[in-house]
Amino acid sequence: MREILAEYKKTFERQLQNILAEYVCDIQPIFEALSYGVGNGGKRIRPALCYLGADFCGKDTEYIKDLAVGIEMIHSYSLVHDDLPCMDDDKLRRGKPTAHVVYGEGMAVLAGDALLTMAFEVMLGDKYFDQNMLKAMRYIANMSGVKGMIGGQCLDLANESKENFGIEELTKLNRLKTSCLIRGALVGSAIRCGADDKEIEALEVYAQNLGEIFQIVDDILDRTSTEQALGKEVNQDVANDKKSVVDILGLNKAKEYIKELENDAIAKISDYGKKSQKLIDLCKFLSNRTN
Amino acid sequence: MREILAEYKKTFERQLQNILAEYVCDIQPIFEALSYGVGNGGKRIRPALCYLGADFCGKDTEYIKDLAVGIEMIHSYSLVHDDLPCMDDDKLRRGKPTAHVVYGEGMAVLAGDALLTMAFEVMLGDKYFDQNMLKAMRYIANMSGVKGMIGGQCLDLANESKENFGIEELTKLNRLKTSCLIRGALVGSAIRCGADDKEIEALEVYAQNLGEIFQIVDDILDRTSTEQALGKEVNQDVANDKKSVVDILGLNKAKEYIKELENDAIAKISDYGKKSQKLIDLCKFLSNRTN
Repeated sequence: MREILAEYKKTFERQLQNILAEYVCDIQPIFEALSYGVGNGGKRIRPALCYLGADFCGKDTEYIKDLAVGIEMIHSYSLVHDDLPCMDDDKLRRGKPTAHVVYGEGMAVLAGDALLTMAFEVMLGDKYFDQNMLKAMRYIANMSGVKGMIGGQCLDLANESKENFGIEELTKLNRLKTSCLIRGALVGSAIRCGADDKEIEALEVYAQNLGEIFQIVDDILDRTSTEQALGKEVNQDVANDKKSVVDILGLNKAKEYIKELENDAIAKISDYGKKSQKLIDLCKFLSNRTN
Repeated sequence: MREILAEYKKTFERQLQNILAEYVCDIQPIFEALSYGVGNGGKRIRPALCYLGADFCGKDTEYIKDLAVGIEMIHSYSLVHDDLPCMDDDKLRRGKPTAHVVYGEGMAVLAGDALLTMAFEVMLGDKYFDQNMLKAMRYIANMSGVKGMIGGQCLDLANESKENFGIEELTKLNRLKTSCLIRGALVGSAIRCGADDKEIEALEVYAQNLGEIFQIVDDILDRTSTEQALGKEVNQDVANDKKSVVDILGLNKAKEYIKELENDAIAKISDYGKKSQKLIDLCKFLSNRTN
């Protein structure tokens, strides 16, 4: 899986640069800031999920490129805004200073806005825009909005210093904040590539679990890893007075919970035999990641 | 014109509330904050331009409602973010405290993000989504992005304290920051309603001039009106150390310049006889507005 992800990442960086080149404008600062926001490395898990969704339906990375770039731009804008002093106030991301540290807060707000707008422009620009792409974009917009990712970020703000945040609230938060865009990537891509209703239903459960796993592993690493290994500040949840699943279940139970989510996710897609193998591998890989 | 705008405003508030009702979610704070951001009154000039674009093509306000609501959400998100302390730091808007004053900065960032996302979701939700709607959305995304409104806001940030900002830079700024979304509203609507290339070209020039007029009148009122009349703080350009067309041309020359823009705008669409009459009236009305 590591090799597949590395290959996908290479493909994505190329697709991203090609698309960004179409948006070069003579207003240098904003283009620089938004390129920094989306170009700042990272694992590119969401584009990989777009490619895997296409692969599941027998399509290639070229076919789904606008959607992959769009989804990653949505993810990147959310990080740029999330890092702002009035949000999580993070100074380091992927081993580099965050956008507002480099370009100032005002420009970071604008860069996030620009990335979100560009995400939709890129997806609308799909050369073969058809009913499936329309359906996929509606799904992605929904997953990114108040009933999805942004709703989750709102709960996350409310989480700060909140005493009565239990496992149910945290599960809801993780599903909205993290799983929704993971669903947008994988399921959105499958919808765009013509998956049928039964496939979409199975992929939705898989993606929801994968998002939860991803978030809980993040929370575990925030407590147990180092700034050097993660490329971002650690113990940020404690610093921001935020509760995570780790606080409530403890480290061991949290790991058991991840295992349950993993088994459930894999069970949901195992009916599809060979064509779901890469997704099964990815789920195992992400459950055991260390950075 | 005043009566037509009042009627349009009534229509728009109804359409907006109907559409917002579909987005009610159980995460109350974000829904409240975004509703405050877009519901906070205002002249609703951009929806009116959407209706006038439809009217120009023989379509009604119902036909263009998703686009009108989407455009106004884009406008509203830009105001919510523009008012933030790290941007213009405005405390009053349309006679009420700005979103970040009421809900806090973090929530205001999220509310803006939510409105921008929702704008696209609403437009994608158009029941009769067709090739014209796709073309219109591409146009609107372009007008809202780095080569349009956001590019203008970036220049506006750079404007602060910049000595060598002349009339050319300010014209460029006004065209990007204000005219682009005005074009998105009027021309986007006309594209959606099937206008031909010649009509689109004429409406583009008209809308560009109208946006400039709107912005320069705003700048004049910032210097010559009162907080009570405008519902927002005055002398903000001076407070933010920003230059406007009024500073460079002086009040009288600025008014002459508005007249030139007005004549040019009207000339461009007068070929269309009766069906452009409302647009002609609107242009005169906005040139002479006092709040």
